[in-house]
Order: sequence, then structure tokens, then C-alpha cells
Amino acid sequence: MLYADYNGSAPLLASVKNHLHKRIDSNLYGNPNALHSMGQRLHSGIEKCREMIAKDIGAYPDQIYFNSGSSEGVSHILGSVLMNSDKRIIITSPIEHVVVPTTLAFYEKKFGYQIIETKISNDGIVDLEDLKALLNKYKDQVALVCIMAANNETGVIQPYKEIADISHQFGVDYFCDTTQLVGKGEFNFEASGIDYAVCSGHKIGALPGSGFIIAREPTKLSPYIFGSTQEMGLRGGTQNYIGIETLAIAIRDFTENKSKLKDLEQARIEFENHVKREVPKVVIIGEGAPRLAGTTLIGLPGVHGQAVLIELESHNIFVTTSAACSDNQPETSVVLKSMGIEDQLGRSVVRISMSYQQGRTEYAYLAEKLVQTYNKLYRIQSY
Amino acid sequence: MLYADYNGSAPLLASVKNHLHKRIDSNLYGNPNALHSMGQRLHSGIEKCREMIAKDIGAYPDQIYFNSGSSEGVSHILGSVLMNSDKRIIITSPIEHVVVPTTLAFYEKKFGYQIIETKISNDGIVDLEDLKALLNKYKDQVALVCIMAANNETGVIQPYKEIADISHQFGVDYFCDTTQLVGKGEFNFEASGIDYAVCSGHKIGALPGSGFIIAREPTKLSPYIFGSTQEMGLRGGTQNYIGIETLAIAIRDFTENKSKLKDLEQARIEFENHVKREVPKVVIIGEGAPRLAGTTLIGLPGVHGQAVLIELESHNIFVTTSAACSDNQPETSVVLKSMGIEDQLGRSVVRISMSYQQGRTEYAYLAEKLVQTYNKLYRIQSY
Repeated sequence: MLYADYNGSAPLLASVKNHLHKRIDSNLYGNPNALHSMGQRLHSGIEKCREMIAKDIGAYPDQIYFNSGSSEGVSHILGSVLMNSDKRIIITSPIEHVVVPTTLAFYEKKFGYQIIETKISNDGIVDLEDLKALLNKYKDQVALVCIMAANNETGVIQPYKEIADISHQFGVDYFCDTTQLVGKGEFNFEASGIDYAVCSGHKIGALPGSGFIIAREPTKLSPYIFGSTQEMGLRGGTQNYIGIETLAIAIRDFTENKSKLKDLEQARIEFENHVKREVPKVVIIGEGAPRLAGTTLIGLPGVHGQAVLIELESHNIFVTTSAACSDNQPETSVVLKSMGIEDQLGRSVVRISMSYQQGRTEYAYLAEKLVQTYNKLYRIQSY
Repeated sequence: MLYADYNGSAPLLASVKNHLHKRIDSNLYGNPNALHSMGQRLHSGIEKCREMIAKDIGAYPDQIYFNSGSSEGVSHILGSVLMNSDKRIIITSPIEHVVVPTTLAFYEKKFGYQIIETKISNDGIVDLEDLKALLNKYKDQVALVCIMAANNETGVIQPYKEIADISHQFGVDYFCDTTQLVGKGEFNFEASGIDYAVCSGHKIGALPGSGFIIAREPTKLSPYIFGSTQEMGLRGGTQNYIGIETLAIAIRDFTENKSKLKDLEQARIEFENHVKREVPKVVIIGEGAPRLAGTTLIGLPGVHGQAVLIELESHNIFVTTSAACSDNQPETSVVLKSMGIEDQLGRSVVRISMSYQQGRTEYAYLAEKLVQTYNKLYRIQSY
């Protein structure tokens, strides 16, 4: 099997599996908030995980708040900022993960917010000049800048440090959806300038249902899932301590293997070149932009992305057409439309997303099968 | 080791552990919303779990929405109802789990809600006549009745069917925090009359960070954690499919072992009688009320609950003083105060909460050690 849908969700890492096998048979269960020693041990375990993660991503432990993943993180940060702000404009981009526009639409309807989107280049990068112009125009009315770090479909990495600088020049906080970057690409919270960031365990080989928020000034946030004093009062509910342990392991696994990213990127470039040589018509979306080391969104004009997906699956290769959560919509995705991509190309795309545990061998097999698939489907002209 | 803090959190069930060991080594990972067959298999697995749970708790599958647990469930239901209602009164009780008053305080402050609490009997049961009088007084202004099913500290089971009937007589929906009842005591959603119920996986031996909402009319709810079409649009985020599997196993485990509840209750009564015989001063809180089969909140006047906890731990017995999340507060809990319990008794309480997997052997050991502990501590008069 060749799993190439890491941007959709990652299988559990081997290190996480090893931990879980041992963990399950331990007798260490209970409520981390209980006074008894089981509770205390679980509690100090959580704090150890927080410290490990903080160290690996360049944050302070008290900037990290565990939760159930990025959809909660996004809903929490936006809810917290927008329910408490007296400003009424949000600046965002048209390439955000669906959770962002859905959440913003709620605050638009319910709280009278105005959502303004920056322009996007054909390579899928936020237009910084446009961002500056928007901030200059709306200045004191802007509650938040909300622009992602790395796009889930194209893998294109946004200039988030510059976005942070520009936002701060106008005194506006910057929330960056870092779901596809933390634990997958080079990232340092302190250096990033970002005010709020998020992480989903299932994207990095930890247990699904785990994740965290990183907040530069946590006191600015109010809780969204209520409760007692858990997570310093910012996130109620008995902590998902097993999920938290897997988060710390996954982030550490990535940190220790970061050097493999270069090889992964090189293998990806060779793969892309191979396919381009064999099928000159193909288009690598966002080719000119910095991208996640293992992400290729490839357009195969003349065939349908969903047909490619199905054909590759017959070779036990798993890819998607765009974001998993909109995978069964046969239209061009909103992200691609905002990049000026027409339907003929948009419907032909396949997303290949690999991990630092993969490399040349996997890419070589993929290239071979993808070219084969294209040649087969092109002959029968699926659409 | 004798773990007697099941109301705080339950260790993973043996059936859940078995599943997890096999599950971890399977290759079935991915995004349940992806079009590829891995995604489809995960998706149909989730639906199978939903059906299993629905059958076991007397609900329809489309009344069940998976989430991260009860704190999310409470925040979601209250948020959804209170952000969308044009009424401004909530009727609740003074014995709710801390997440409820914390959430309600937010809507009081932010949205101008008025929170009204029913009276509570000395045995810890909601006063139904008072509830009727309140509903009669505030009628059309009441947005929701919010009263729990079984109290986490005392184990006292509330007359939730009657509460549902009374609420509905006044045309008001009833949200019942069923965290301590679902998967722990006899419960049938359809028969209960409840409009919104919740469940936390970690309370029933499933993975922490898993849970669900049961909603009689789900279309009345809006999403709280935003996203795409996951959970029929009511709960965004990639589903915690491993957590969901453990929920279905835990609920099924309980269903198949329900007959053990009678034995557990009998063993608990014998335990209580044993301790009362040896230490005539003890008070069983809520003794006259129907209680969860395995919960005893016992007051040991003249000694401090925390001292008992520590002493029992030296025998490898794990109990708490009250709710885990307020365990390190040395005062009488809000719940006990509302039952008219004074500090001298309130500070002496110890909560013993057992599971249907335990019985006479565990209770006999506990009785022996508890009496020993009392005699030892009473001599040194810890306060």
C-alpha cells in the first residue's frame, strides 16, 4: 500500500503505535484533576508533554492549550476574539480551510461582522500589498487577520512572518491556521510572529481527536468549551491525556527527523519532473511558490481527478482530489478558483501528499503508476 | 490496586484495550471524509458505531453526534440554544457539574440571561413542585430547562422523566446532563423524554477525548465547532474514529453486563451497612434517594476527607473527596451546600465510585480499610 493522503490525515506513527501498545496495558488511568496520586501522575505527564511540545515548536509551555484538534482551535480562537471585540471587520484569504469561512459566516450573520478577503496570486500566495492596503483602509475597525500558514490542497506556504509583521504594524492580532505546517514543516512559534496558531494530532500521526492551540498572550482568550480550571481555565473537560501523549511523541518524532524534509522535497521535485517529462500537459499547481516538502497538487488536463483517484486505488495507492472534506464535490475547489484556475484544469487535479517517512521509492512507484493511469484514462477520455 | 473513582474517570475497559491493540496494528487510517476506499471504510465504521450506540441507548442513529466529550456537549447545546433563543431565562439546579454553571455564567454576562435555580431536597433531589412553580411563573420567557440525570458527587439520580414531562407541559425543551448515567445506569433516550443528552467516553471506559450528544430534534441545534459536513453539519473536524470505536465498544460492554448492576448495588448497600455498623456516626449522603448502583458519598464526621483519601492511598485504594475537578478545594462542595450540609460534615466526605466490573470482594476490602482509616484518623483528630 502507498498512502499519499497525509494532508487529509496521517496514519499513526510507528513511535505512537509503540507508545500506545505499552500505554494501554499500563494501569495509569484516571482523572488528571483528581487529588490522588494517579491523578497527579497523569497531570504531571500532561505537563511534561506540554514542555516537550513547547521546546520543539519554539513556544513557552503556558502558551499551549490542549484541545480536540484544529476545527475546535479555529472555532475557539475566532469565537473568543469575535465575541469579545468591538471592531467589526475580519481580514482573511479565499484559500482558508473550510472551517474558517464557515465560522466567519456565523459571526457575519450573528454578530454583524464584515469578512474581507485578500487577493491571491496565480501561484496561490496571499497578496501582501493587498493586505497592507486593506489594513490601511479599515485600520481601527479590524478585529483580526486570519490567514493560513500552508494550504491543505496546494501545499503552498504563505509568507506568514510578513503577514504577522504587517498585521502588527496596524496593531491587529494575527491568527494563522498552522494545521498543515506544525509537525510537518519548519516552524518556530516565537520567530513566526503569529499570535494564535493551531495543531491537529491526526494530521501528524498522533491520535485523532487530539490537538492544541498556541497563543502568544493566552489571557486574551476566553474559554469556548467551558469547565473548571483545566488547561489554565481556557479549555474545560477532562484532558485527553492519551491523545496528549501521542501529540508530544509525534511532534518529537518530527523534530528528530526534520533533516529528512530535504530528501523528501528533492524526491518530490524529481517525481514532478518525471511526470512532466512523460506527460508534458500536466500542471503543477503553485509550482513557483514555496510548498510543503511532500505536497503536489497536479492537474492532468483531459482526465478527471476522481477517475485518477479510483484507478490509482486499483494499484493500492491512496490519493485525493482536493481537501478530504470536499472530496466528493466534483467541481473545482474554492481554493483553485481563487487562484484563477478554470474548470477544465480544476476538475483534473489530484493531490499527492507524502510524509517525511516516505521518499524516492514511494515517489518512483507513484510516478510510474500516475503516468500509466493518465495514458489509460486519456485514451478513454473520461470527460 | 483498588480503583474507586469511576465517577471521576474510568480506566479503559478490557474490551476496549483488546480492540485498541488490534486496531493500532491495522492499516486502517485516514480521513473518513476522503473519497478513497480507506476513507469510505472509516466512514462506514463510524456509522456502524453510531447504529450500535443508538440501539443500546434507545435512540435513532441520526440523533447521535460524536464530539470530544461532555464539556463540549454542554458548551455546544447551551451555546446553540442560548445564542439562538429570544427568551432570556434558564431554569437549572444548584447541583449541576461545574461546566453547566460556568457556561451559564457566560451567557448571563454576555447575552443577558437570567439563571434561576430550583430548590433541592436534603437528599439531593430536585424539587419538582418548585420547578413547576418556576415554569408557571416565567412561562414564555424560559429558553431551556437544564437539570442533570445523576449527580457526579452523590450519585443521586434525578427524576428526569418527570422533569421532561413538566418542561414539555410548559413547551420548554429539556437538556439533561446524562454524563454519569449513560453507560453506567439504566437509560433509554426515547423513554426518557429528554431533548438533549450527553456522554463522555472517559467516564465509561472508552478513550478520553471521545463522546457524543443525543438530540431529539437535531435540526434545532446549530454547530458550535464549525467545519464541513461531518456529523451531518453539526460538528466540524475530522472525526475521532478511534475514539468513536471505543465508545461503541464501551456502551455495548455496559449493555451486555447491565444485569451486574443489581449485584453491584447490593454489594454497595452491604458495604454502607458494614461501615455504619462499625462507625455509627457516618452519614451516607443522599441515602434516601435513588442512586447510581456504585456510588457512595460518605461523611465521616471528625476526620477530614482529604486525610482519608491519602490514608486509603497507602493501601492502594483510590477515592476522591468530591468531584475530581474540585478535589483540591478543602471546602464543602457547592452541591453539598445546596443540600443543606454543614462544613463539619461537608469536609469529611469521601466519594467511592465503583463500576459494574467490581463487586463484593472490592467492597469488602474497602469497608475494612475505610473503618481502619477512620479509627486511626479519629484518634489523631485531623481537624
